[in-house]
Amino acid sequence: MKVAFIGMGTMGAPMAMHILKAGFPLVVHNRTREREKPLAEKGAVRAASPREAATGADVVVTCVSDTPDVRAILLGEDGVLYGIETGAVVVDMSTISPAATREIAAAFSEKGVHMVDAPVSGGSEGAQKGTLSIMVGGDAEQVQRVRPVLETMGKTITHIGPVGSGQLAKAINQIVIAGVYWGVAEGVALGLKAGLDMEKVVQALSGGAAGSWVMDNRSNNMIENHYPLGFRLQLHRKDLVIGLEAARELGVTLPVSALVEQAESGLIGRGYGDEDISAVARALREASGIE
Amino acid sequence: MKVAFIGMGTMGAPMAMHILKAGFPLVVHNRTREREKPLAEKGAVRAASPREAATGADVVVTCVSDTPDVRAILLGEDGVLYGIETGAVVVDMSTISPAATREIAAAFSEKGVHMVDAPVSGGSEGAQKGTLSIMVGGDAEQVQRVRPVLETMGKTITHIGPVGSGQLAKAINQIVIAGVYWGVAEGVALGLKAGLDMEKVVQALSGGAAGSWVMDNRSNNMIENHYPLGFRLQLHRKDLVIGLEAARELGVTLPVSALVEQAESGLIGRGYGDEDISAVARALREASGIE
Repeated sequence: MKVAFIGMGTMGAPMAMHILKAGFPLVVHNRTREREKPLAEKGAVRAASPREAATGADVVVTCVSDTPDVRAILLGEDGVLYGIETGAVVVDMSTISPAATREIAAAFSEKGVHMVDAPVSGGSEGAQKGTLSIMVGGDAEQVQRVRPVLETMGKTITHIGPVGSGQLAKAINQIVIAGVYWGVAEGVALGLKAGLDMEKVVQALSGGAAGSWVMDNRSNNMIENHYPLGFRLQLHRKDLVIGLEAARELGVTLPVSALVEQAESGLIGRGYGDEDISAVARALREASGIE
Repeated sequence: MKVAFIGMGTMGAPMAMHILKAGFPLVVHNRTREREKPLAEKGAVRAASPREAATGADVVVTCVSDTPDVRAILLGEDGVLYGIETGAVVVDMSTISPAATREIAAAFSEKGVHMVDAPVSGGSEGAQKGTLSIMVGGDAEQVQRVRPVLETMGKTITHIGPVGSGQLAKAINQIVIAGVYWGVAEGVALGLKAGLDMEKVVQALSGGAAGSWVMDNRSNNMIENHYPLGFRLQLHRKDLVIGLEAARELGVTLPVSALVEQAESGLIGRGYGDEDISAVARALREASGIE
């Protein structure tokens, strides 16, 4: 099975490396061509455009930043659509709009090409280690077909439903994360203002109904007011906007996601967008006059 | 060490039973006297009033519903204050206002009586099994003194800081819980409206950064729209109001806690107060037209 991988970013480069190491013939492309080199040194073939990368591939994987990038790579000038052959499958592992995913899938469908959406969680560490959680949307047969490729990159691969479902699941992930981070941040803010030893409070709370991955792994950032990466706050804001747009289309009320998105937008405006998402605690610390 | 226990409710009765079984001489009192009987059958002595229960006790434990009840039992007519002897210690295991706790402690302090606040989490199941998490505020020496009694009821006993700190930690617990339940409920609402198989989504998400006790144990209630107890929504609302009042006194901004408290108040008004707190999902399901 010949694989093409487009997008050699923080996530894409190590993901492509896992595919290569698993023994799949691999063609790579990146807008900044320089970034193809580490993969080429390990045996990947470089392609000058998405179109060229897609030509002759059985599976074309994309992993880039946002909906417009995915559209450009897949449907734009010299895009995948103009090189890919009937019967091949596109696997988009970016986090983008579920509605855009369905539109793009329809464009490929006209050419007899299948599309699978397969956004990931687990961050750059998960990408490096090949332990990502991959949420997959698409036709069951096609998902089965690309599973061996996905398995090189992820520990948990969950087929959620039809095309777009993977993106919806990822949006839900970010919506839940918004509530959990913010809830922990509110608790931390009250405790700090009251002068409590917050490490003891976290210790008392973490085993019970208030417990979460965020409490165990990120409450300390909020207590220390220091937010090393982690997961960039501005990337979470981008993903949360995707969730809010999906909610708008579907007619769903998400007041806390909206509140957190607005708080994040304020923080990004003040230069905190490259901090870890636990920096949402800054908004509450500052609003409450906590030094 | 002679122990008196006041409040034989859903929580208090099994907690007192643990103290009795551990071999401490125990005097019990409850406003509805009938409820003292199961303890008396196991060897506890019944007292006609909080004052009588406190007379001759080394440790007086209270576990009732709310701040006014605690005030009445401790400081009211025939209250503990009028029976307790200098050098004894009051341990309030109710969930009440941290500020009221400090006021009550001051009243006892004038009589040379110490106060320790020791609210619990873990629910009726934790009370039955003696596996509660107990958050303790008070003088370190007094906390050490009553620890053998607390250890009969709890698995985790954390001394947070001075008197009132246990109540603040409990308030923080409920604030964090508000954010986590609501965040999970927003994610579930989007997924249900989009027609996703939410069990698969929960499976994909629960191992990652969105993971929590609520996701693992209560998302299914929200998906099924069925909310068996659990922890009563109206009790969470009561506790959350304590947190919001503490925030008001300290000057802390807790927008999501305020939002959840208001949503819970609407649900209580519509007759859902005796459901599990996961019923907060009703507010989002209904606002979003999810059947």
